[in-house]
Amino acid sequence: MLLADRIARAETRIFKAVFPNTTNHYDTLFGGTTLLLMDEVAFIAATRFSRLKMVTVSSERVDFTHPIPGGSLVELVANIEHVGRTSLKVRVELFVEQMYSDDRHKAVTGLFTFVAVDEHKQPVRILAEEMESSLTLVAPPLDS
Amino acid sequence: MLLADRIARAETRIFKAVFPNTTNHYDTLFGGTTLLLMDEVAFIAATRFSRLKMVTVSSERVDFTHPIPGGSLVELVANIEHVGRTSLKVRVELFVEQMYSDDRHKAVTGLFTFVAVDEHKQPVRILAEEMESSLTLVAPPLDS
Amino acid sequence: MLLADRIARAETRIFKAVFPNTTNHYDTLFGGTTLLLMDEVAFIAATRFSRLKMVTVSSERVDFTHPIPGGSLVELVANIEHVGRTSLKVRVELFVEQMYSDDRHKAVTGLFTFVAVDEHKQPVRILAEEMESSLTLVAPPLDS
Amino acid sequence: MLLADRIARAETRIFKAVFPNTTNHYDTLFGGTTLLLMDEVAFIAATRFSRLKMVTVSSERVDFTHPIPGGSLVELVANIEHVGRTSLKVRVELFVEQMYSDDRHKAVTGLFTFVAVDEHKQPVRILAEEMESSLTLVAPPLDS
Amino acid sequence: MLLADRIARAETRIFKAVFPNTTNHYDTLFGGTTLLLMDEVAFIAATRFSRLKMVTVSSERVDFTHPIPGGSLVELVANIEHVGRTSLKVRVELFVEQMYSDDRHKAVTGLFTFVAVDEHKQPVRILAEEMESSLTLVAPPLDS
Amino acid sequence: MLLADRIARAETRIFKAVFPNTTNHYDTLFGGTTLLLMDEVAFIAATRFSRLKMVTVSSERVDFTHPIPGGSLVELVANIEHVGRTSLKVRVELFVEQMYSDDRHKAVTGLFTFVAVDEHKQPVRILAEEMESSLTLVAPPLDS
Repeated sequence: MLLADRIARAETRIFKAVFPNTTNHYDTLFGGTTLLLMDEVAFIAATRFSRLKMVTVSSERVDFTHPIPGGSLVELVANIEHVGRTSLKVRVELFVEQMYSDDRHKAVTGLFTFVAVDEHKQPVRILAEEMESSLTLVAPPLDS
Repeated sequence: MLLADRIARAETRIFKAVFPNTTNHYDTLFGGTTLLLMDEVAFIAATRFSRLKMVTVSSERVDFTHPIPGGSLVELVANIEHVGRTSLKVRVELFVEQMYSDDRHKAVTGLFTFVAVDEHKQPVRILAEEMESSLTLVAPPLDS
Repeated sequence: MLLADRIARAETRIFKAVFPNTTNHYDTLFGGTTLLLMDEVAFIAATRFSRLKMVTVSSERVDFTHPIPGGSLVELVANIEHVGRTSLKVRVELFVEQMYSDDRHKAVTGLFTFVAVDEHKQPVRILAEEMESSLTLVAPPLDS
Repeated sequence: MLLADRIARAETRIFKAVFPNTTNHYDTLFGGTTLLLMDEVAFIAATRFSRLKMVTVSSERVDFTHPIPGGSLVELVANIEHVGRTSLKVRVELFVEQMYSDDRHKAVTGLFTFVAVDEHKQPVRILAEEMESSLTLVAPPLDS
Repeated sequence: MLLADRIARAETRIFKAVFPNTTNHYDTLFGGTTLLLMDEVAFIAATRFSRLKMVTVSSERVDFTHPIPGGSLVELVANIEHVGRTSLKVRVELFVEQMYSDDRHKAVTGLFTFVAVDEHKQPVRILAEEMESSLTLVAPPLDS
Repeated sequence: MLLADRIARAETRIFKAVFPNTTNHYDTLFGGTTLLLMDEVAFIAATRFSRLKMVTVSSERVDFTHPIPGGSLVELVANIEHVGRTSLKVRVELFVEQMYSDDRHKAVTGLFTFVAVDEHKQPVRILAEEMESSLTLVAPPLDS
């Protein structure tokens, strides 16, 4: 499988209804719950791309540009953005959809970095050597 | 928008990592949690198709053909299967993916019926009249 | 112990207050949470009857005939309905009680099938042979 | 309805499977989760007896005499123990059942006091006056 | 380290925003959730003092003197109150703070007893012998 | 009250035991749960400083430098770092403590920005005008 196909196949989506068990007392999705969902979808995408044990290394700046009201829907979409030798970056976009109209807009974006580790928690190579050489065609490597 | 497009756009996906907070003491995804996730994804698809207030009316027989081990991934995919005058049916398929291999197979299937209601909890028409006439082209109506 | 006694002793009840952490944004018990509770009470009844490792095989059609408002109480009652050689069926009835009146009515009914398995996930006999022979007096066996 | 009948009908039961989402890292039911379940079953019994808005006033000493291992079942049973003019006491007993044997024993006991309040949070009378007079036949009043 | 220092260092605090996932349908913090939080902070303080495996033995009478409204903040503060040979007592105080004013008052107090156990669940000595002798200077021992 | 005192008093702490309901299948605290806890403690500190309605605007880069094993304790400490006219920044530090030794080290750091809003979701001034003038003595303002 080509790297581009593998990246396409790793795309991961999560829809969520904003019910009272995820909101604050202003009846909007709590910021912390948003971050929890973003890291979860990013983790799944990273794992599905690499098929290796991945651990979160960092999250880059996350901007919350729109409040997310209770009783709306959110969709989180995660895509592999950069692949390095032992780490990769996943972009997460969160869209808000109204329940009772087709209105949909992007509300939050984030970038999460994961590292692949073996059973001794040592970083391991994500791609086979021959695939790594094709890497720069898709995206500049992160850490080499 | 044609009905077929609207059905295609209502497709809804949820990925989930099977972590300890969703498993039973055999370290497999608890059956009840599976049903909870299936109803949630079906509810979102029904709402996104109709853009109306939808309430669960029934779930048809659900078969759990494979256990879902802790530490695997599941993807739930919901699609509109039948559209009636005031109710619709959503098919939910649950796929299990291993974390560390590309192995993926279908483990559970279900069919959920929702009815559209107004603020007085009375059933309301899901489609505009002119669209309803084209309905039989896609699927036999449920309740007329 | 006679089979009839064993069935009577396996009856299992769960009361639950419908608080905001279990409701949707219409302030009614979310359908998925209802299914989660029904499978849990059925699982406990199946285990208490058989004293074996039980896994959910299927849920039959579930009808949600009444909405269950936030701020009400629900009681789930599970009873063994059929006993087969390696599987059994549990009927679950969900009653809604108002908090501030004695009004109580049945809102949901379901039927869940479980199979008894050993440590290799192979089906095992639920009843000792001599008890099995008395089975048809109580209920027709499921799978023989 | 006689007071004794009303007390009998208010008995409230909750069964629970001890799954990983309720245990501590020793794989036993966390003490705090036990208290949460005990207060919930007591609250439901108090509400079902009085059909009034009840708030927790105090819990008496609770003794945890046995650890409750993950993978066991617990049943909580709540009964009205004392009825006063505006408050009542509920006794909660928690039994542990093994999943794979008929072994069952009491592990925790507690006593919770609730007061009935109106919409201004003022205490209100729990029983009609004529019933109150019969109260001492059943149990000494708490607060008069 | 002196015993008094060790007691001071074991003080443990938890702040919590009262969001809808912790309230009852009266929009106040559910009594059971309060007890869950109190036992958790007490358990952490007991563990941090002893650095041993601690299990909850009992909770003394807990008085809920003020309702805790949704949309407020609570702080739980746990302190070691008595140290015995194999058990200790932790006092927990719960303060309510308004979000939009500096108003703060104590709403609940409790006392939890823990025992230190080894891997065979047998009670073990909490303090080294030489430290135990200084114990009576701080607090009378519980169980010797 | 001087600004420095107000900053000191807004310091907010949360201790948490890493139990199975917060871990992934590697038995370490899930990254998303860490972010959820960090945003919660930051939100509380921001609210306690300003006594205004605060909404999360962004989280800066968060580095996860150490895995946080199940069965350990974490303490999150939030402090006001910068105060602007309508927004402020909160620094969150997460410390890991072993349960059975005094070992403690910092594992995660983050910086969260909140904006104060009125009931129409418009930004409002955080400090009274006369206090604002003293602001530069403590920290450079964020947004003026």
